[in-house]
Amino acid sequence: MGSDVLYKLQLFDGLFKTCRKCKHHAERPRARNQTQNILAARQQLSPAAERLRHILSEDDATPTPTIFTEMDTLQQDGEELEWKESARWVKFEEKVEEGGERWSKPHVSTLTLHSLFELRTCLQTGSILLDLEGYSLPQIVEEIVDRQIADGLIPPDLKEKIIFVLLRKHRHQTKKPIHRSLADMGKSSNTPSSKDLFCSFSTDPSQSRSMNDISDTPSTDQLKNKFMKKIPRDAEASNVLIGEVDFLDKPFVSFVRLAQATTLGGLTEVPVPTRFLFILLGPQGKTKSYNEIGRAIATLMVDDLFSDVAYKARDRDDLIAGVDEFLDEVIVLPPGEWDPKIRIEPPKKVPSAEMRKSVLNLNELGQMNGSAGGAAGGEDDELPVQHELGEELKFTGRFCGGLWLDIKRKIPFYCSDIYDGFHIQSISAVLFIYLGCITNAITFGGLLGDATDNYQGVMESFLGTALAGTVFCLFGGQPLIILSSTGPILIFEKLLYEFSKNNNIDYMELRLWIGLHSCLQCFLLVISDASYIIKYMTRFTEEGFSSLISFIFISDAIKKMVGTFKYYPINRGFKPDYITSYKCECVAPDQGKTSNLDSSVPPLWFWDDSSPFFNLTDLDWSQLSKKECVKYGGALVGGSCKYVPDLALMSFILFIGTYSMTVSLKKFKFSRYFPTKVRKLISDFAIFMSIMSFVGLDMLMGLDTPKLIVPTEFKPTRSDRGWFVLPFGKNPWWWYLATFVPALLVTILIFMDQQISAVIVNRKENKLKKGCGYHLDLFWVGVLMAVCSFMGLPWYVAATVISIAHIDSLKMESECSAPGEQPQFLGVREQRLTGVLVFVLTGLSVFLAPILQYIPMPVLYGVFLYMGVASLSGIQFWERMKLYLMPPKHQPDFSFLRHVPLRRIHLFTLVQIICLAVLWILKSTFLAIIFPVMILGLMVVRKMLDLMFSQHDLAWLDDILPDKDKKKKEDEKKKKKKTEGFVDQEIMNIETNSERPRERFNRFI
Amino acid sequence: MGSDVLYKLQLFDGLFKTCRKCKHHAERPRARNQTQNILAARQQLSPAAERLRHILSEDDATPTPTIFTEMDTLQQDGEELEWKESARWVKFEEKVEEGGERWSKPHVSTLTLHSLFELRTCLQTGSILLDLEGYSLPQIVEEIVDRQIADGLIPPDLKEKIIFVLLRKHRHQTKKPIHRSLADMGKSSNTPSSKDLFCSFSTDPSQSRSMNDISDTPSTDQLKNKFMKKIPRDAEASNVLIGEVDFLDKPFVSFVRLAQATTLGGLTEVPVPTRFLFILLGPQGKTKSYNEIGRAIATLMVDDLFSDVAYKARDRDDLIAGVDEFLDEVIVLPPGEWDPKIRIEPPKKVPSAEMRKSVLNLNELGQMNGSAGGAAGGEDDELPVQHELGEELKFTGRFCGGLWLDIKRKIPFYCSDIYDGFHIQSISAVLFIYLGCITNAITFGGLLGDATDNYQGVMESFLGTALAGTVFCLFGGQPLIILSSTGPILIFEKLLYEFSKNNNIDYMELRLWIGLHSCLQCFLLVISDASYIIKYMTRFTEEGFSSLISFIFISDAIKKMVGTFKYYPINRGFKPDYITSYKCECVAPDQGKTSNLDSSVPPLWFWDDSSPFFNLTDLDWSQLSKKECVKYGGALVGGSCKYVPDLALMSFILFIGTYSMTVSLKKFKFSRYFPTKVRKLISDFAIFMSIMSFVGLDMLMGLDTPKLIVPTEFKPTRSDRGWFVLPFGKNPWWWYLATFVPALLVTILIFMDQQISAVIVNRKENKLKKGCGYHLDLFWVGVLMAVCSFMGLPWYVAATVISIAHIDSLKMESECSAPGEQPQFLGVREQRLTGVLVFVLTGLSVFLAPILQYIPMPVLYGVFLYMGVASLSGIQFWERMKLYLMPPKHQPDFSFLRHVPLRRIHLFTLVQIICLAVLWILKSTFLAIIFPVMILGLMVVRKMLDLMFSQHDLAWLDDILPDKDKKKKEDEKKKKKKTEGFVDQEIMNIETNSERPRERFNRFI
Repeated sequence: MGSDVLYKLQLFDGLFKTCRKCKHHAERPRARNQTQNILAARQQLSPAAERLRHILSEDDATPTPTIFTEMDTLQQDGEELEWKESARWVKFEEKVEEGGERWSKPHVSTLTLHSLFELRTCLQTGSILLDLEGYSLPQIVEEIVDRQIADGLIPPDLKEKIIFVLLRKHRHQTKKPIHRSLADMGKSSNTPSSKDLFCSFSTDPSQSRSMNDISDTPSTDQLKNKFMKKIPRDAEASNVLIGEVDFLDKPFVSFVRLAQATTLGGLTEVPVPTRFLFILLGPQGKTKSYNEIGRAIATLMVDDLFSDVAYKARDRDDLIAGVDEFLDEVIVLPPGEWDPKIRIEPPKKVPSAEMRKSVLNLNELGQMNGSAGGAAGGEDDELPVQHELGEELKFTGRFCGGLWLDIKRKIPFYCSDIYDGFHIQSISAVLFIYLGCITNAITFGGLLGDATDNYQGVMESFLGTALAGTVFCLFGGQPLIILSSTGPILIFEKLLYEFSKNNNIDYMELRLWIGLHSCLQCFLLVISDASYIIKYMTRFTEEGFSSLISFIFISDAIKKMVGTFKYYPINRGFKPDYITSYKCECVAPDQGKTSNLDSSVPPLWFWDDSSPFFNLTDLDWSQLSKKECVKYGGALVGGSCKYVPDLALMSFILFIGTYSMTVSLKKFKFSRYFPTKVRKLISDFAIFMSIMSFVGLDMLMGLDTPKLIVPTEFKPTRSDRGWFVLPFGKNPWWWYLATFVPALLVTILIFMDQQISAVIVNRKENKLKKGCGYHLDLFWVGVLMAVCSFMGLPWYVAATVISIAHIDSLKMESECSAPGEQPQFLGVREQRLTGVLVFVLTGLSVFLAPILQYIPMPVLYGVFLYMGVASLSGIQFWERMKLYLMPPKHQPDFSFLRHVPLRRIHLFTLVQIICLAVLWILKSTFLAIIFPVMILGLMVVRKMLDLMFSQHDLAWLDDILPDKDKKKKEDEKKKKKKTEGFVDQEIMNIETNSERPRERFNRFI
Repeated sequence: MGSDVLYKLQLFDGLFKTCRKCKHHAERPRARNQTQNILAARQQLSPAAERLRHILSEDDATPTPTIFTEMDTLQQDGEELEWKESARWVKFEEKVEEGGERWSKPHVSTLTLHSLFELRTCLQTGSILLDLEGYSLPQIVEEIVDRQIADGLIPPDLKEKIIFVLLRKHRHQTKKPIHRSLADMGKSSNTPSSKDLFCSFSTDPSQSRSMNDISDTPSTDQLKNKFMKKIPRDAEASNVLIGEVDFLDKPFVSFVRLAQATTLGGLTEVPVPTRFLFILLGPQGKTKSYNEIGRAIATLMVDDLFSDVAYKARDRDDLIAGVDEFLDEVIVLPPGEWDPKIRIEPPKKVPSAEMRKSVLNLNELGQMNGSAGGAAGGEDDELPVQHELGEELKFTGRFCGGLWLDIKRKIPFYCSDIYDGFHIQSISAVLFIYLGCITNAITFGGLLGDATDNYQGVMESFLGTALAGTVFCLFGGQPLIILSSTGPILIFEKLLYEFSKNNNIDYMELRLWIGLHSCLQCFLLVISDASYIIKYMTRFTEEGFSSLISFIFISDAIKKMVGTFKYYPINRGFKPDYITSYKCECVAPDQGKTSNLDSSVPPLWFWDDSSPFFNLTDLDWSQLSKKECVKYGGALVGGSCKYVPDLALMSFILFIGTYSMTVSLKKFKFSRYFPTKVRKLISDFAIFMSIMSFVGLDMLMGLDTPKLIVPTEFKPTRSDRGWFVLPFGKNPWWWYLATFVPALLVTILIFMDQQISAVIVNRKENKLKKGCGYHLDLFWVGVLMAVCSFMGLPWYVAATVISIAHIDSLKMESECSAPGEQPQFLGVREQRLTGVLVFVLTGLSVFLAPILQYIPMPVLYGVFLYMGVASLSGIQFWERMKLYLMPPKHQPDFSFLRHVPLRRIHLFTLVQIICLAVLWILKSTFLAIIFPVMILGLMVVRKMLDLMFSQHDLAWLDDILPDKDKKKKEDEKKKKKKTEGFVDQEIMNIETNSERPRERFNRFI
């Protein structure tokens, strides 16, 4: 029949009133802030919407409980009738797969328009019992039937029959073990056997059958049901009962709302009290149709808006208004473009109930919008939410104002900063970051040692990292930041040491004074709230900086790997057959060519003893090792001397292996295998597991690959220095003042490095909740500068890549509550514990050396490579780079692509690439020392972009630069416009002022 | 207003008539075969459906053209009004992204219910002009406006204004180059400059503006539009014009169908003649609403069913019936579960128009269905389409009947078998399969050489492969099958050689007689149509066999790789520092310890000369290579003798590298980068590119990794045999008869191996169109047996894995026509060319040796690994194995999961795993020789599964075994049932007979 349904519709005549639906998007943000007064003035609401507005605004204070809906259908089980669960809804639909005897995946309920219309008729013709006082199923059923009889809907003689049917037992689909006993095996075979007969008459263990138990206490089956944890605590149930019987000739429909939610025995599969009952019994032959009606009411019941209506409805018409409102909002898929058999996976985000309710209240406001923006599709004209740096970076103008605010902000979180750290994820984070930190400490320690003749070596690097890191994580404003040595500091130290050596100045003392000056300068910056200038740093600068640092990480990891090939050269011309011609012999230097066949002295004796004082002529040169040979001036002769077999290739395998395994394990979270928790654990511990696997492989191969070597004794690397540097005595007095100048450079370096990393860590995307502390951070960095200078340790500053890795390893996702709901990124486990642990462990590494010595360096380079690559992902700049390689039709649906022409996006990306290339080149020269200063250059370039790009484009690709004057003007305009109802975009245009009207129009089309 | 629309609906009273929609699925397959007579008997169609049935059945002979729809909206461009394209539809919607100035991705048009109702009203109230004689836009517009005036819908004084608006120029969104000139850069900046002014007044090159050109010839812009190739050749356009004007106070709606499709100047962006025009002009303020109505009519116009209606409609009511029918079929998404902003990607498959039309005709038949299957959800009760082996395997009962049919079937395709091969894909396939074949030839050749003391070596293997392969590909029934030596044959030869050596029988002559007998036996099998028994081989057997072969491939590849580590042992204890203590010296054997410092003979002279006759005492032992040293009885002394550096690890890198690169490149097809064609090319040539890359890497490293070595001279491996084996003379005469017995084993071996591979190749999933030729194949295999035996070459039979690889490399996909339509797998490029080329190249490999010698073996092992893994993918058995590791809620939506309980699926998989394990174990023993016979065992196990599983479950997990008696019965039943309208499943139940009714019912619920 189908079509005649619509055919009979007397279609409305009010054609060209505004379509409310289409205005939602543009209007929402503003709509909510509007007062009810405006509304009252425009009494053009449709009757249904008007009705709903009335009901829903009555007592908004009490939120309605979540509804769990279960749909049971009446089925013939042999001789007996029973109600069998056929689907359930928490938010999305789960269907019982009849054949598969299991729950389907949660999916979006696709309904037919038809069933919704039929449901509407059901509600119009059936009996509606609102706020029925019910305490048990038989009593409720009796009341329902009595009401129907009273209304003359059914003849009284059917009462018994209907009650009988409605009180049949309920059989629920509960989870069962996957592997059943072997006894089941023969069950559905077609050999008739006595066992078969027995099986089919005995109760099926996989399905719980709640008998007509009218007891109020939940059954064991109900209580044992694990599904319960997917249902919110306050949930109430709505039961939909659908069946066909032979004694009716027209349908029996009843919608019941109980005055109090009551547990009605085994009605529901879970021990959730029932609030709503929808009963549909009809004559035979229309099962499909009834099922669809059941699905329709079930879907409605879990709809946020309709469930509110159902709770608050005063009469039948309210319910029908709810259905109408629902119908008005539905989304329709054309039959030729979508196969109804496809189950639609739940979307990542669903429209929130609040949005929909607010729209309901203000639906008429949309009208004006249509006329404003011309015919251009106004729905997409929203501007992106602007990146707000918040009050942390406000210029207070008071002495230490920012610092004081920082402390005030962080103190209340101090306790939670500790106990929030107790989570299994923290272990993985600590292991990961710890390994990153010690690798960094060793790398930088080694380089610093080379640069300063071991005045600062690996030992100092470890101690300094541990000390600075622990202090910062305990007292800093943003304990998620990881301090580390950074490249610019390394270069500065190198230049400084060369300078002092060439001019006979004491390096350690000079350095101490620079540190002290720099510390004071930092304090000045803290006192004067200078960090506020960071708010001029937009996404452009931030992404440029972090991409550059990531590239440096990646290139360093690869360089180190390539270095291995140089350090362990491979003998390329080697032919296995000519192995006899490859040897490496130590030959005595020409001057002392004596017989080494002197039999009186056993030749092995010499090189076993490592004492350097013995007669060179007595040496058995051929028994010397390579190093000894070189040491005693011998010559290495032979084809294999230059080459080291296997190590380079093994290192390469370890490097690539660690990297790829980490990437695969991280991705494993999105695979289908294993339960979610296991997958999450694997993904959290991906780096640890890869490191362990490849350390294992390395041990198995037993090759002498380069290993991590940490100092095992607690003493300065150079024996002629102690743990404390005296400030006076070695250099002329005027140096104490002159160091102010180099200190200025160090300060800028530290300020930029520290604050940019902090901005990146505090990115909005990370959803940090405990606030940041730019001033407090800088204060502690200053203090640590001084301390480290006194102790002759390297200087420390926030390390971007490791900090990002730290944050990534601490990300939290919501446990998905309703089946099918996508887990949401909730934020980061903000605490001080992981940081502190990492650095305490770094300090203790001296004692962990026996364990750490098994870790091959190439494995750690692999981890570095991963860190670099991982910190690139999710950067918009990186996504935009990829766009160059994608034909437009394959590009992902980024919102900026919808709003900014592709060529402008490419141009913007190109500017960024050029900036980075320039920075990269500068970095490779001696100018590297002013590297963080060059970031200021990026900010200047950004300012110039204002001339090249419209504010509209920049708002999508970057952020708008803050500007006091403009800000005010904008605010004023906004207020004005709001009442006039112009689109946001217009504000932007007028704000930029200089555009011609025609120019402005061009951008819209 | 929204809700009041529905509020005013006088809802239908025919509530409990059957919902047609829900019955579609179960009824479709049969419905189409029904006669119109049945229909005539049931005159219960709804008026709308009745109307449509009438229109659509009138002249079904002429298919209606595809419709391309373009929607233009009226916009103010500075002072001027113009029509601007805002969206277009071929099958899915593409929207102009206003901000992004580009086309959105094609997506499913999500409409609002509201707009559909509004559209319906538009069609009810507006003017409908069907079959208007139109030749130019002004003339058509004039007619439209005149009609409106005549109907009294608009006052005559508006005529001029409306005509003016409707004749404004059209501006289309055409593709433009991504990078525009630098001159554009400043364009949307906010510095006012004279250039800016100029720019904004000059025409924008990115958008073609067709002036009011009333010319009938398409403009250059139109002709240059690349989009044209996405539109089917016969397409006609439907133009939707939506605009708001200030002079109207009620909407002006017009729907026009032209008598002849006419090109109306620049109306459409592509030079497609226009057939339909929908015009909606309305008073200002409702842009959104108008746009939605425009989208609704555009979506309707591209709907298969509605476009038919639009072409054939006789009056307004027909159109409205079309809308109603559309509305009745729409799928509705609940507003709380789906965000309307999400653009839905086009699905993989859409319901076909034929289905939908047939349903329209037979919608009332569904009624009965509801009552048939009880309350169980009947919609899912379809059985999977049964695997039909077709007439190829019918038992003809005539002499050579099958062979004759095969030849008759293949002859007509012979020409196309040649020219279908001319495609770029063939090149990649030839290279890939060629490399697979020669690797196989070398591997098996080497093994055969070992097993038969080089009676059959690598040379024989190459020649045999080339000969057998070429003949088979030229004349065989299924030229996609690749012949190769297989494991069982190898084992047979080995045993045979040992037997003849031990019993002093001439091996070559014995083998010749076995070959001849086997050939005769094959002919007997061909004559008697014995191949028909293959039809008892179901998916169970087929998948078991092919999985096993794949596992063997994978394990062989890995074994070979591990072998490399044994062949090139790594010195694990090596310390780079002690390189001086590692050497390998050749020391003269003890008996002849003479001075090698005899200065009269230069020591180098000896080993340079390879003559074996010289005085051992004259040797300079220390100068000998490893092999020579061993040859002359020297002893190798030293720590490095046993070890070979780097080669094992390098081989491993090449192996893993080739495999992973191939996998990644194959996957690249699904990435977003580069245009589809480039991606397809990369994916097609994935294996070739990986091989080339790693051959390059190997050359770059210059290491002496094991290389592919092919014979360079055309002569038998053993010098004492020729290219022809004489049948008589060497063995006693009775051997000529006795060889009948071993030949029987060979025949079974060949028959099973050949035919199972053929079944796998001919799988329904491969969509082969040229039919198969089981008997013809076997005939040629027999012939080749005899030929190869005479020439002393190995025997050849179909190789499963390489044949699958061959098919995979020749798969065709449809070029996606309409934007957003998913490419469909069309079938395989069935031809003889690739096969012939592969084997000709194999024969020529003797001359290609200089090139082939650069290919390292580990690279080829990597290719083997890929072949093995790739042939596993897509096997249902493999998918089911994976299910063990997946929690039920993460399992993919396989149809068998919807219909068969998980525990039964797991049980079935377990049985398969056990069978394979048993086969694997047997294969590893001497029983390997009867390996193909064991496949018969699999078929027996399958027969027994009938006792363990219901036919319903087996139908989903496997195929139903054919049975002559049952078949007939089934056919009868089917005929009977068809008229009664029972569900298919019932047939299955009754067919299996032995089930109790209760048992049967249980399975449904």
